[in-house]
Amino acid sequence: MSSTMTDELKATLDPARKSWVESANDAQSDFPIQNLPFGVFSDANNAKPRVGVAIGDLVADLAALHEAGLLRLPASAQQNVFARPALNDFVALGRDTWRSVRVQLSSLLARETATLRDDAALRARAFVKLADATLHLPVEIPGYTDFYSSKEHATNVGSMFRDPKNALLPNWSEMPIGYNGRASSVVVSGTPVRRPNGQLKLPDQERPVFGACRKLDIELETGFIVGRGNALGEPIACESAEEHIFGMVLLNDWSARDIQQWEYVPLGPFNAKTFASTISPWVVTLDALEPFRVAQPAQEPQPLDYLRHKGDHAFDISLEVLLRPEGVQEATTIARTNFRHMYWTMAQQLAHHTVAGCNTRVGDLMGSGTISGPTPDSFGSLLELTWNAKNPLELKSGGTRGFIEDGDELTLAGWCQGEGYRVGFGACVGKILPALK
Amino acid sequence: MSSTMTDELKATLDPARKSWVESANDAQSDFPIQNLPFGVFSDANNAKPRVGVAIGDLVADLAALHEAGLLRLPASAQQNVFARPALNDFVALGRDTWRSVRVQLSSLLARETATLRDDAALRARAFVKLADATLHLPVEIPGYTDFYSSKEHATNVGSMFRDPKNALLPNWSEMPIGYNGRASSVVVSGTPVRRPNGQLKLPDQERPVFGACRKLDIELETGFIVGRGNALGEPIACESAEEHIFGMVLLNDWSARDIQQWEYVPLGPFNAKTFASTISPWVVTLDALEPFRVAQPAQEPQPLDYLRHKGDHAFDISLEVLLRPEGVQEATTIARTNFRHMYWTMAQQLAHHTVAGCNTRVGDLMGSGTISGPTPDSFGSLLELTWNAKNPLELKSGGTRGFIEDGDELTLAGWCQGEGYRVGFGACVGKILPALK
Repeated sequence: MSSTMTDELKATLDPARKSWVESANDAQSDFPIQNLPFGVFSDANNAKPRVGVAIGDLVADLAALHEAGLLRLPASAQQNVFARPALNDFVALGRDTWRSVRVQLSSLLARETATLRDDAALRARAFVKLADATLHLPVEIPGYTDFYSSKEHATNVGSMFRDPKNALLPNWSEMPIGYNGRASSVVVSGTPVRRPNGQLKLPDQERPVFGACRKLDIELETGFIVGRGNALGEPIACESAEEHIFGMVLLNDWSARDIQQWEYVPLGPFNAKTFASTISPWVVTLDALEPFRVAQPAQEPQPLDYLRHKGDHAFDISLEVLLRPEGVQEATTIARTNFRHMYWTMAQQLAHHTVAGCNTRVGDLMGSGTISGPTPDSFGSLLELTWNAKNPLELKSGGTRGFIEDGDELTLAGWCQGEGYRVGFGACVGKILPALK
Repeated sequence: MSSTMTDELKATLDPARKSWVESANDAQSDFPIQNLPFGVFSDANNAKPRVGVAIGDLVADLAALHEAGLLRLPASAQQNVFARPALNDFVALGRDTWRSVRVQLSSLLARETATLRDDAALRARAFVKLADATLHLPVEIPGYTDFYSSKEHATNVGSMFRDPKNALLPNWSEMPIGYNGRASSVVVSGTPVRRPNGQLKLPDQERPVFGACRKLDIELETGFIVGRGNALGEPIACESAEEHIFGMVLLNDWSARDIQQWEYVPLGPFNAKTFASTISPWVVTLDALEPFRVAQPAQEPQPLDYLRHKGDHAFDISLEVLLRPEGVQEATTIARTNFRHMYWTMAQQLAHHTVAGCNTRVGDLMGSGTISGPTPDSFGSLLELTWNAKNPLELKSGGTRGFIEDGDELTLAGWCQGEGYRVGFGACVGKILPALK
């Protein structure tokens, strides 16, 4: 466990701690008292988006708790940073504040603390049912970067589109390859996604045609949210890079494979990716993930100095992808994998991103890249799962899928399994609307 | 001339119009009364950045003019949008407002208008000498996209790094190839640029080494600033795309060629470009550029429907690059070219950017891509001018350059030549600091 954690912070991770919010003590809840993820919500009684924390089947309204004098902020926070439509101002207060708020919330929500437990009027003001809440994009995202850090994914894609014998390009093993994404089209879970139109190069025609994407795909990713930026020209050291990370979300980096295949040489994917990227609404803090820290895969060759860090920097996060066709009750789990397979760590990604001098800002989203595991049922995209539609997936509700069809609802889920509880991310959902005519 | 222009707007373009600011009537001034570019400035008397317009050797303080009741805004502007550290709130008011402000300013600054001309006290409050002003980034840039729209540049790069016989990739002639840049590191002219460190793959070594970039380069570009965004899923039509453009700036997209060469396959340039991009401080509006509209080069094959527009959509903008070594007075002009050579138009870039559904936002910066002309002295990068350092450039002050050396100051300049006046962009300058050890 991180040596920078105080005893009271470590206590927030105690598996034995229970909440007076009974639904949070359910072993299947994504949001036990050990989690306390941050998000932004509104509801029918108060349409103003504000900061909340998920606990069981409730959302704690941090703006209201602060207003009621129950949640202290440092003197440097001159205003109620929870009464904002994004987490950025809160996050900008720094890690000591994130941790102080976590400790305070854990105490307020603990079974033995009477303050809220025994005050129905206060609870009515400061809690909303999760089912009644509208969840918004948790952060304003100044920049979105996507990495490509799963060795299995890079190998699969290289095998399919380049050369199976030299699937992995030589630079891949030397650096966490990344590229700039489009921040404007990052949307929150639940936002419908319209199938994109674009140029398609059909094998039997000399010129491209314009039309609706025929190879619409997901990319199962996680993303981390930058909690402390760096100034232009001042790189972040790998060893301390995790201090710059506020927390993690699930990320579905929707991809139009046919548009991508035609456009991506030589400057990378553009319209194939910029039509939408969906993130889960709750940011799970790095502190909440601490008990699930594990060793990253061995790296061979040993990375250059600026990419080295001691200790364990991967996290044991189980991941699933579900597909549910329109009008059908039953979803099919089409992939199961784990974040721990990722070759490059988040710390290495951030060190590489900034080593040439690039600045990052609070709220920046950094995608992991598609997370594919070692087995064919653990791949993080339909492209890989069906091997470019050559081996369609069988759905439980009948029918098959090579790529995504209109009306399909895709859900990413992720959680860390503790003893008798799980730290979950909540769902990352998107349903496909037909392309514009 | 655009049919949407009113007579009073057309009158602002009259070459015969003169200003009572005599320096604006100098045929060599970048900022005659026909230009009226928008920027953000502060000065020793007022450190608060605010919106200004350059006129001759002065800056008109629009916040002060509005406060003095001399510059009307529509009722929808509930506050003084000029008293802001970025143009975004003003730009968001829409094209009718940009045009109304232009008409009002042209009238206020015209030789025959006494209001300011004859009121020394008012002038003292509302004008600052350009030489005394600190110029800031004119817009807050939510997203930065860079295109690759010069046929000559793409051909040169393809010849050098891929295959001289098939220098232009097949997708290039079908769409304005573009990619997402990094908005956080866009800086204003005058900001020093630190030579980046990164991974370099030397020909005689199996693994990359870490060190300072040895092939530091410029890219001579223009950029346009989005003045009206589009919603996610709602593409902008090519025919009306120019209505979404507020104006243009000069853009130096600094590039580390050795880092780029090693990292860019398969997802495009990243650290090679994200350490800094410099823009000029004044946004020249599309209205001011209207008299310099010319036909774009013929496009063969004819673009797909969504990339077609009638009429002329290129602009005759002369461009120059100057290099001045440290401690030397005399700069050498190392390139001369013109924006009119660009194969893909700004309207086509914006239509392509949004055709799959990507949203754009007020303040987005869209780079043209390196602007190279047809002759070897008209190339927009040192990579091309020296053909990857094979033919070093001779400097007037002595010495040669393959790529940029520490202490070199690079300046981009651009202007449209009218009858007896020129509409200039002001300089886009950056000086190179040595890499971090």
